[in-house]
Amino acid sequence: MSHWSELVADKKRRQLESIPQEWLISTPPENVLDVTGYAETCGLLTFQEIQITNTSVDVLLGKLASGEWSSVAVTTAFYKRAIIAHQLVNCLTEIFVERALARAAELDEHLKKTGHVVGPLHGLPISLKDQLSIKGLETTMGYVSWIGKYAEKNAVLVDILIECGAVPFVRTNVPQTLMASLWPETFNNIFGRTTNPYNRLLTCGGSSGGEGALVALKGSPLGIGSDIGGSVRIPSAFCGLYGLRPSYGRIPYSGALNSLEGQDSVLSVFGPMTRSLGGLKTFTKAVIEAKPWLKDPLAVRKKWDEEEYKLADHGYGKKLCFAIMWNDGVVIPHPPITRSLELVKAALIKAGHTVIDWQPLKHRALGDMTREIWNAASAEDYKVTTSVTGEPIITSMMIAPGPAVNAPFRPSKDGISAYQLWQVQKKRRDLRQEYTDLWEATVLETGTGRPIDAIICPAAPYAAPPHGLNRYTNYTTVWNALDYPACVFPVSTVDPAVDVKKPAHSFVDAFDKSIYDLYDPETFKNAPVCLQLVGRTLEEEAVIGMTELVATALTH
Amino acid sequence: MSHWSELVADKKRRQLESIPQEWLISTPPENVLDVTGYAETCGLLTFQEIQITNTSVDVLLGKLASGEWSSVAVTTAFYKRAIIAHQLVNCLTEIFVERALARAAELDEHLKKTGHVVGPLHGLPISLKDQLSIKGLETTMGYVSWIGKYAEKNAVLVDILIECGAVPFVRTNVPQTLMASLWPETFNNIFGRTTNPYNRLLTCGGSSGGEGALVALKGSPLGIGSDIGGSVRIPSAFCGLYGLRPSYGRIPYSGALNSLEGQDSVLSVFGPMTRSLGGLKTFTKAVIEAKPWLKDPLAVRKKWDEEEYKLADHGYGKKLCFAIMWNDGVVIPHPPITRSLELVKAALIKAGHTVIDWQPLKHRALGDMTREIWNAASAEDYKVTTSVTGEPIITSMMIAPGPAVNAPFRPSKDGISAYQLWQVQKKRRDLRQEYTDLWEATVLETGTGRPIDAIICPAAPYAAPPHGLNRYTNYTTVWNALDYPACVFPVSTVDPAVDVKKPAHSFVDAFDKSIYDLYDPETFKNAPVCLQLVGRTLEEEAVIGMTELVATALTH
Repeated sequence: MSHWSELVADKKRRQLESIPQEWLISTPPENVLDVTGYAETCGLLTFQEIQITNTSVDVLLGKLASGEWSSVAVTTAFYKRAIIAHQLVNCLTEIFVERALARAAELDEHLKKTGHVVGPLHGLPISLKDQLSIKGLETTMGYVSWIGKYAEKNAVLVDILIECGAVPFVRTNVPQTLMASLWPETFNNIFGRTTNPYNRLLTCGGSSGGEGALVALKGSPLGIGSDIGGSVRIPSAFCGLYGLRPSYGRIPYSGALNSLEGQDSVLSVFGPMTRSLGGLKTFTKAVIEAKPWLKDPLAVRKKWDEEEYKLADHGYGKKLCFAIMWNDGVVIPHPPITRSLELVKAALIKAGHTVIDWQPLKHRALGDMTREIWNAASAEDYKVTTSVTGEPIITSMMIAPGPAVNAPFRPSKDGISAYQLWQVQKKRRDLRQEYTDLWEATVLETGTGRPIDAIICPAAPYAAPPHGLNRYTNYTTVWNALDYPACVFPVSTVDPAVDVKKPAHSFVDAFDKSIYDLYDPETFKNAPVCLQLVGRTLEEEAVIGMTELVATALTH
Repeated sequence: MSHWSELVADKKRRQLESIPQEWLISTPPENVLDVTGYAETCGLLTFQEIQITNTSVDVLLGKLASGEWSSVAVTTAFYKRAIIAHQLVNCLTEIFVERALARAAELDEHLKKTGHVVGPLHGLPISLKDQLSIKGLETTMGYVSWIGKYAEKNAVLVDILIECGAVPFVRTNVPQTLMASLWPETFNNIFGRTTNPYNRLLTCGGSSGGEGALVALKGSPLGIGSDIGGSVRIPSAFCGLYGLRPSYGRIPYSGALNSLEGQDSVLSVFGPMTRSLGGLKTFTKAVIEAKPWLKDPLAVRKKWDEEEYKLADHGYGKKLCFAIMWNDGVVIPHPPITRSLELVKAALIKAGHTVIDWQPLKHRALGDMTREIWNAASAEDYKVTTSVTGEPIITSMMIAPGPAVNAPFRPSKDGISAYQLWQVQKKRRDLRQEYTDLWEATVLETGTGRPIDAIICPAAPYAAPPHGLNRYTNYTTVWNALDYPACVFPVSTVDPAVDVKKPAHSFVDAFDKSIYDLYDPETFKNAPVCLQLVGRTLEEEAVIGMTELVATALTH
């Protein structure tokens, strides 16, 4: 067995070789922080390629279906822009240009011959987090030990995307172990670190950080991330995207690689990340209408419900009541986040809706309990995997790591017994019940005859922080614990002129103070600010519908 | 703290006092094995009470809704017959006549005043397994340690039944620990043993054995059992009833007591047991239409789908393909079971359907894996509960137990680690995937353009066996492991003239031989024989619809 660093060197060499020479940037920008404008000025993209990659998912699908744009043209455009993005923020893992273009050509041929699209995603290139196995390709998931692990078949979701006519075309970077709630940034021993396109000194978040950075740079119209504690929503929020965390089992997981396999309680789910809200709906509907439950035993047999999307259970969108959670009682958000909540509140009231305050219920306990479940055996899980090659387990996401961070969220080496795990899971069940009861009880406060329709809250207490400092995930993790679908949506960007540092509040504790101290308007300048809309379990249709309603209110 | 046996004596005294004196049988039959005819001849029931208790659920509901029969009359009739049943087979735990009749009177009053029913189960008495908490009543679940545990609120399912207009009127006996797949009979240190109404030397099965015996004796029109490995279906099969094991989360569980709490993998579910198939549908539909997901965070947000009930996904019932599993490759069923499968096969073919053979896939591994999950910490769970009073943990279901049975299914004292548990759960995921793939692959064999519509198989390898000998549950447990909904339905009874002992087959192993040796036509004479129809996850509507189709075919 080679030393692990030799395996890495070989893998990186192969990755570099997979990039067409003519797509390489001769002199990548070095000291530029914001690289979002680079692709359109570097000269590698044609006018049409720029036009294509600036187009939203639904419009792309229309032009692909009509034959106005071929899938080869669209896939080539995004591929080129993805490769440019990669050279700026290091976001890709597997690159397979020929294969993707061959697939695109087949789709074009089919359309030409039959006059019909293959499915609702005909011709659309889609990027995939480095867990979604594609037959014949490696999936390393950031583990050196998995270099050389070639998939014998597609993950079910990949099969469904293909059935829907999509073109899987790149895979994207992740943190080692994938456990974003422990390391919600994107760094591993093989591919290194992915950075934030808006400011490369900031993190893109994680664990679906490669997707976040790639989609923000328009290197993909739509990407698929996974989310066990915030891994779709954190990078979506840090990179200014829409990102949906569906309920367990709504999108198939079968056949994908993962961490903590066999952990049956707080589950990872796949979800879309995109710049266009319409794309979220189109993707989710297409996948569900492909009946994933026939192929994945853990997928929920629940049809896409257009009535629920039209908000049948929410007065058909006429007069909703939203609850805004200004903070979670553990960590007080930075000024740009609070300002964005205020923007949303004003927009919703202006649009005729009601807004009340949400009192968070035991969010600290929900987060702690969730990590207790994952850490019941995560240390052993990581060790079993990494010990194959002896690659080191990463202990910090800092650029220049000091000693291992002795953070409270790090897993215990020894794990716990099955009986102890059951006791934590029982505690979880009780917390879920309390939250359900609290939600139902709001019927007395809303004035709509219904309980609140959704919660609106931060996706993180800050915009994208500097590398190594994204240390608090409860704003997303609690909804995983409760299995509530949640959609991140962009609201604003950090504006130092407005988002001045506030006077110190009465700190909840030293950790809250450390988050307060982190804020400096210049550090976060121009970073996107997103928020989160949270609905009830298996209510994906309504969550998408309500997020559209909020997005519309924000633009009026 | 009193000695545990004093607690039992007090509880039994209170139970006896809760029975109206005039409903006591002065000289209960002693040496009669089949007590199914006793109630109608003992003189305690009026002609109308006999008529009411012989009426099926849907007809009862019609007469209750029209006011032809009052809920007080119907509840009184079933209560009397339940108390008679109890004196014959020892099936009840909590008895609360006044409370139930007061509730019935309220419903009658409501109907008289408003002309409207309260809900779809208006006025119907429903019996509950001794887990379903009712505010103000004890729930012991067969544990001496839980004597004196009075519920502060109703289980969610009880609330929903009340909302639907039902009258919860008795609770029924269970085995200690409730783990029917370990002890699929009904015996505990408080209430003792429940016996089979068709032959009191035989077991009624378990763990919902009190329900099985009570409903068979027409002491209840419909009962609610729970099923983690067969606990609804085994007593339904042994007592000649219809019994549905729904998928996880279709019927709410919240607020009910349980064993192995916090075990998040192979879950217990509630399901109806009744003599009338229409009752199964009416109950299931009523509960789902009450939107249990608003009150129970683990309930699945999936509406009742009348199209699925009409078999929209199964060619609208026109020409189905059923797969018959003659045996599971581990234990060969007794002659009456095989004969019943042949009866069903012939009836289905006659009705124009197709029948193919089902090759069981790794049923032994599925069963072993499931018990590994439960036993990861079950011994500690039982010990923590029983040690409060020091009541002994029951080690055999034999009438005169010898030394503790050192059966392979008994839990290990030490349990396993969380990491080990995850590895078993991962194995389970893989087995579920294999079964899904196998099911889908049958599309090549059915001739319908669809995969098989359902599997038909034994619910146990035998009819109700003598007490202490119900030692094999894989015929039901595998479907829990796979989370497939399954419905038990009656087909026949053991007829010594036809069901003669067969020559020894080539035994799978010594255990298979021991089941073969158990068969003697005279021992099982007149015991009901039921089979099981198995569908796909969350397909309750279609499973009920297909069971109706099979039942109809059997009567033509």
